[in-house]
Amino acid sequence: MKVLITGGAGFLGRRLAMQLLARGTLSGPDGTPQPIDRLTLLDIVPAEGITDPRVACVTGDIADPAVTRGLIDAGTGSVFHLAAVVSGQAEADFELGYRINLDGSRAVLEACRAAGSRPRVVFTSSVAVHGGDMPAVVQDDTALNPQSSYGVQKAIGELLLSDYTRKGFVDGRILRLPTVSVRPGRPNKAASSFASGIIREPLNGEEAVCPVPPDTSLWLLSPRKAVECLIRGHELPSDALGRQRAINLPGLSVRVDEMVAALRRVAGEEVASRIRWEPDAAITRIVASWPGAWNPARAEALGLSGDSGFEAVIRAYMEDELGRPA
Amino acid sequence: MKVLITGGAGFLGRRLAMQLLARGTLSGPDGTPQPIDRLTLLDIVPAEGITDPRVACVTGDIADPAVTRGLIDAGTGSVFHLAAVVSGQAEADFELGYRINLDGSRAVLEACRAAGSRPRVVFTSSVAVHGGDMPAVVQDDTALNPQSSYGVQKAIGELLLSDYTRKGFVDGRILRLPTVSVRPGRPNKAASSFASGIIREPLNGEEAVCPVPPDTSLWLLSPRKAVECLIRGHELPSDALGRQRAINLPGLSVRVDEMVAALRRVAGEEVASRIRWEPDAAITRIVASWPGAWNPARAEALGLSGDSGFEAVIRAYMEDELGRPA
Ligand SMILES: NC(=O)c1ccc[n+]([C@@H]2O[C@H](COP(=O)([O-])OP(=O)(O)OC[C@H]3O[C@@H](n4cnc5c(N)ncnc54)[C@H](O)[C@@H]3O)[C@@H](O)[C@H]2O)c1
Ligand SMILES: NC(=O)c1ccc[n+]([C@@H]2O[C@H](COP(=O)([O-])OP(=O)(O)OC[C@H]3O[C@@H](n4cnc5c(N)ncnc54)[C@H](O)[C@@H]3O)[C@@H](O)[C@H]2O)c1
Repeated sequence: MKVLITGGAGFLGRRLAMQLLARGTLSGPDGTPQPIDRLTLLDIVPAEGITDPRVACVTGDIADPAVTRGLIDAGTGSVFHLAAVVSGQAEADFELGYRINLDGSRAVLEACRAAGSRPRVVFTSSVAVHGGDMPAVVQDDTALNPQSSYGVQKAIGELLLSDYTRKGFVDGRILRLPTVSVRPGRPNKAASSFASGIIREPLNGEEAVCPVPPDTSLWLLSPRKAVECLIRGHELPSDALGRQRAINLPGLSVRVDEMVAALRRVAGEEVASRIRWEPDAAITRIVASWPGAWNPARAEALGLSGDSGFEAVIRAYMEDELGRPA
Repeated sequence: MKVLITGGAGFLGRRLAMQLLARGTLSGPDGTPQPIDRLTLLDIVPAEGITDPRVACVTGDIADPAVTRGLIDAGTGSVFHLAAVVSGQAEADFELGYRINLDGSRAVLEACRAAGSRPRVVFTSSVAVHGGDMPAVVQDDTALNPQSSYGVQKAIGELLLSDYTRKGFVDGRILRLPTVSVRPGRPNKAASSFASGIIREPLNGEEAVCPVPPDTSLWLLSPRKAVECLIRGHELPSDALGRQRAINLPGLSVRVDEMVAALRRVAGEEVASRIRWEPDAAITRIVASWPGAWNPARAEALGLSGDSGFEAVIRAYMEDELGRPA
């Protein structure tokens, strides 16, 4: 069976690809395990350094229907749709956000409909679909009220995937990801970029700027657990989801000052003192509009689990990315 | 100031046009009353029989960006966006529904953004944005979970209008209309068409088919009140809506057998006996997925009111459309 990852050169896409290759199989559209014969990584930037013979790296734009139609056919059993313009960039560039996050998602779904293989489609949604007046802990049936263009685009993607699923064109699974931290590499244009930067940069001997107040609550998930949830979400039997295709993934509700305290415990005062507090109104507004926690009961009942604590998340980052046990 | 009604040849669009012409003014983007110098009725079918010199009837497709851009400019103060493919048709023709209800709504909003006049935009949404597992009475913060393509398209239109409003491109007001009854004329392809047909056809001496069980609950609003709410919704100060642009309009929660009983009381047994019960699974599935009632507290607090009872609705229909007092 063929498997496609859009955004396959990205942070989660790459890690998901490695896990899928190690695993070797996925449930096919009929629910039985199928070998992954071909794993295509589609991204607007080249995916480099993955040499497995099952992998094909394709550079192209999901919003170009010729690209998506060319990569999804009757042999495609699974699509992990991860390609997206991140929150800060979608807010700054209105047209780009709608072109990639709305038109692009639609092009992926239209290609699946045309292929006729009823693939399982895993869509990565976000805390950003919530906002406005919310309960302190968001529930599964709390109305979406996104307060950013990115959140609106993710909410629209959810609606489209639900409709394509109801119509029998795909078998969709919407996983609402907490903010993923600790993310390696450089800062990006996501409004949540600091949620990794304030751990990553200090551990790296660099100064980090925290653009939100210390008492800001975040809802976090580690990269390891995020990738595990994407695969488990794919493997759930369709009936387990029923008419509600979206699942709020479990996370840790952590205040930014608690994150820094965990860093201090793991890596010491010198490292933790490399954080500079410089509130940024635009970022604070977007981040403050997201829920600081939601009720993960449904996800947990479906066997999707999160992290045990933020200290463990920092230690896993140091192990996976810095190659040093903490 | 220029005012545009999309779907201006339709049932509500026509009636809205007559009321606006009689009224003569609307609040402009800055909140002060402005004379309506030009009222453009855009529809895919010709709007006939409206001769007021302020009216321009344009035949064109909202999904054609050249059409919408040509009709919305810096002088446009208000857009009532009513053009849509109705529920039954959007369910039967997947591509048409998305083209008109999603791409068309987006073309209208993009034209407003390009015009730069920050017009007030009134969007007619529907009970169909709700569905799935719902409380018996839907609340303002009940999560949308549409179970039809039409409902999905309306929910997407709501999200887009909210985002364009938040960005300051338009001043949007989303009015979620109950099913409007009694609608004159012929049956249409809306799944709710029978909600008018079972009153209208018997009063007209014809047989009517009711495709849903007698204990089906509907959430209804009369045409008079619907048009009144569209205008009042337009006139609300922007701040009264805040970050939640959608308003669930007040309605009457009536069972189909209660509607027939009201018809019997108003028009007699002979008329009421012209209804044939012939359940249709597809229509019943769509209609049963809609809420039978929602809490109209917010609408009422904003001064939007519904009907006093279904008997009065039938009498108003006879007065307005049949020219006979009941
Ligand atoms: N990381 C998080 O904290 C987080 C949280 C919630 C949701 N998500 C979602 O998870 C998904 C993956 O996130 P990530 O952290 O790996 O982000 P990422 O930015 O690292 O990866 C996204 C990838 O999509 C690619 N892409 C962008 N536009 C494209 C286009 N037009 N065509 C093809 N590819 C394109 C980018 O080049 C990038 O490699 C995204 O959909 C994101 O919105 C992430
Ligand atoms: N009547 C109801 O019960 C009800 C309930 C909830 C919501 N609504 C919404 O209210 C609005 C008006 O409803 P109505 O009952 O007057 O419906 P209607 O069908 O009478 O009017 C809609 C009009 O839109 C026009 N139209 C369709 N496609 C078009 C296109 N591509 N370009 C331009 N015009 C196009 C149609 O020709 C029609 O005249 C619609 O958006 C509908 O979804 C109606």
